[in-house]
Amino acid sequence: MRTLTEDEIEPLATGAWILGAGGGGSPYDGFLNLRELYRQGTTVELMQPDELADDDLVAVVSTMGAPLVGQERLADPELSVKPVLALQDYLGEAFRAVMPVEIGGGNGLEPFLVAAGMGIPVVDADAMGRAFPEAQMTSFSIHELPMFPLALGDIRDNAVIVTRAASWTWMERLSRAVCTALGSTAPTAKAPRTGREVKDCAILHSVTKAIRIGRTVHEARVRHDDPVGALLDAEDGRLLFQGKITDINRRTTGGFLRGDAVLDGIGPDAESRFEIAFQNEYLMGWRDGEATVMVPDIICLMDSESGEAVGTETLRYGQRISVTALPAPDILSSQKGLEIVGPRAFGYDTDYRSAFDD
Amino acid sequence: MRTLTEDEIEPLATGAWILGAGGGGSPYDGFLNLRELYRQGTTVELMQPDELADDDLVAVVSTMGAPLVGQERLADPELSVKPVLALQDYLGEAFRAVMPVEIGGGNGLEPFLVAAGMGIPVVDADAMGRAFPEAQMTSFSIHELPMFPLALGDIRDNAVIVTRAASWTWMERLSRAVCTALGSTAPTAKAPRTGREVKDCAILHSVTKAIRIGRTVHEARVRHDDPVGALLDAEDGRLLFQGKITDINRRTTGGFLRGDAVLDGIGPDAESRFEIAFQNEYLMGWRDGEATVMVPDIICLMDSESGEAVGTETLRYGQRISVTALPAPDILSSQKGLEIVGPRAFGYDTDYRSAFDD
Repeated sequence: MRTLTEDEIEPLATGAWILGAGGGGSPYDGFLNLRELYRQGTTVELMQPDELADDDLVAVVSTMGAPLVGQERLADPELSVKPVLALQDYLGEAFRAVMPVEIGGGNGLEPFLVAAGMGIPVVDADAMGRAFPEAQMTSFSIHELPMFPLALGDIRDNAVIVTRAASWTWMERLSRAVCTALGSTAPTAKAPRTGREVKDCAILHSVTKAIRIGRTVHEARVRHDDPVGALLDAEDGRLLFQGKITDINRRTTGGFLRGDAVLDGIGPDAESRFEIAFQNEYLMGWRDGEATVMVPDIICLMDSESGEAVGTETLRYGQRISVTALPAPDILSSQKGLEIVGPRAFGYDTDYRSAFDD
Repeated sequence: MRTLTEDEIEPLATGAWILGAGGGGSPYDGFLNLRELYRQGTTVELMQPDELADDDLVAVVSTMGAPLVGQERLADPELSVKPVLALQDYLGEAFRAVMPVEIGGGNGLEPFLVAAGMGIPVVDADAMGRAFPEAQMTSFSIHELPMFPLALGDIRDNAVIVTRAASWTWMERLSRAVCTALGSTAPTAKAPRTGREVKDCAILHSVTKAIRIGRTVHEARVRHDDPVGALLDAEDGRLLFQGKITDINRRTTGGFLRGDAVLDGIGPDAESRFEIAFQNEYLMGWRDGEATVMVPDIICLMDSESGEAVGTETLRYGQRISVTALPAPDILSSQKGLEIVGPRAFGYDTDYRSAFDD
């Protein structure tokens, strides 16, 4: 266990946004909130998974909903704590620590706000190694752990607990219906996990990875070096396309942000076009009509100059973008993993082909 | 406390259907279920409100949703018990008894199925004295009692508890969203009440009233007398119109059955038309364009021959109908009552005028 230092907060935000694959919500206001808490003297402990006792109870948190709406209703520590307290009350047992369900985007910072509010540490782990749009798309689901109870909170005095769900799909459906009724964004405390379950079934050291990625980008910027190139070198990533956004089609529907975007190539890609589809996160990319990258690979659209990630809700006409891919944790491309987070899980009738194979 | 006898079950169903004002769902399968339980040797105790200790905990049950869908998914005792057990588990305290939130329709019989399943008595009371479409339309709401926690169950292994709601409207919105996700029908256990709250804030003796109404109708049938006339005589009701259904417009939307119907007069009303609007329950009636009856009066459309109530989901072209009104419990037409269940609460820009005034 060690204290997260103030100078790690910004790299954590940058790295989480890159691992978000366009989703998980912008980490910017989570970053501002956490920095403010630090400046007021609060600090948060980062705990390694092997420091958990087997029977410790860990809260698993995220804000659910359409990122575009999340942008309009800012995260705040008090709100993030609400569903965790509701679930703790329901369980009648105190949480030892808190972890993100997804390290990607603002959801990677959310457990730090909860930790600050409750005085418990954050576990250096998550259940996606990135961000995904649906509740069942986790390593816990791949390991067939139970998906309930789940609590949802609200800025108003509303709280809902899904105490049982017949399947992950039912949990997704029920919690999504409540989230939509609450205004298409809601902080949630997912099914709690024991220390043993975290050690065996989570994706480990994701917080450390996000901080490392953020540092790589920041240090390249300071050196006036190419941040995108530095990131891809350090993390074994791939540069897939460089271009300008010429078309965006985006709609908030059923609690998700769905759509697609087209990029016209520049530089070495000047003769090509790239199309990308998203559901909160970037799902699949086609270069000149041919699928070249797909989930679960971490597709990240980055500002070519700054190396800052560009979320699906902030994509805009004319932006100069580097389309990149980072490798996803192995468990996501296992056979069971692909059933849950591969292209077919998103309705694409194609087998997964890694962007790192050739 | 006394045992409900088997020969009271059918009158209870008939009376509950009449008090349903077209809604609350058909009591027919609740009746069949309860009769079957009795034939297998189960009986249910009916408890008077003054037999409750002040700190007894009472479950308040109903099936929520569009009656048309309720017709397609039959009530069964095991299902009705589910949300009550979920709520009991959440509260950590056993229920002393169970009561209907609305005596009207199938919901008037639902607590008997729960009582049979759990071995607890039914309290002779409800919170509407009829049926209404929305959760906040109760005497408990008029008395400003809290509206949470509320549990929803499902035929599948799903269960949701709304543990806090910022208002009755929020409770309605959240539970309706969950109900719709579960297929537009769900058994619920509403906010539990203490014995004191039931004695002070419920509508008392509603079960006895439903049985009495049913008996009046059945006995008139046996005598080959006019059941509609017998009912109106015995319960100080009014005959508003006799006619044939010539037009029905019905849609299931947002978890409700909404629509309107037109009747062409027969007999003494041959020169007139009657129009009636509904949202699960009959809300308002116009004779030749003039509003003559409205909520909270209990508007009941009855088969002119049999005196059987006709629900909003079973109205059909060509039916011969007697449009009648029964007086509602006084609390519903109090100033606070009308705010919650008067015509304006349903979007009609008109002051309440009782059908019994002139």
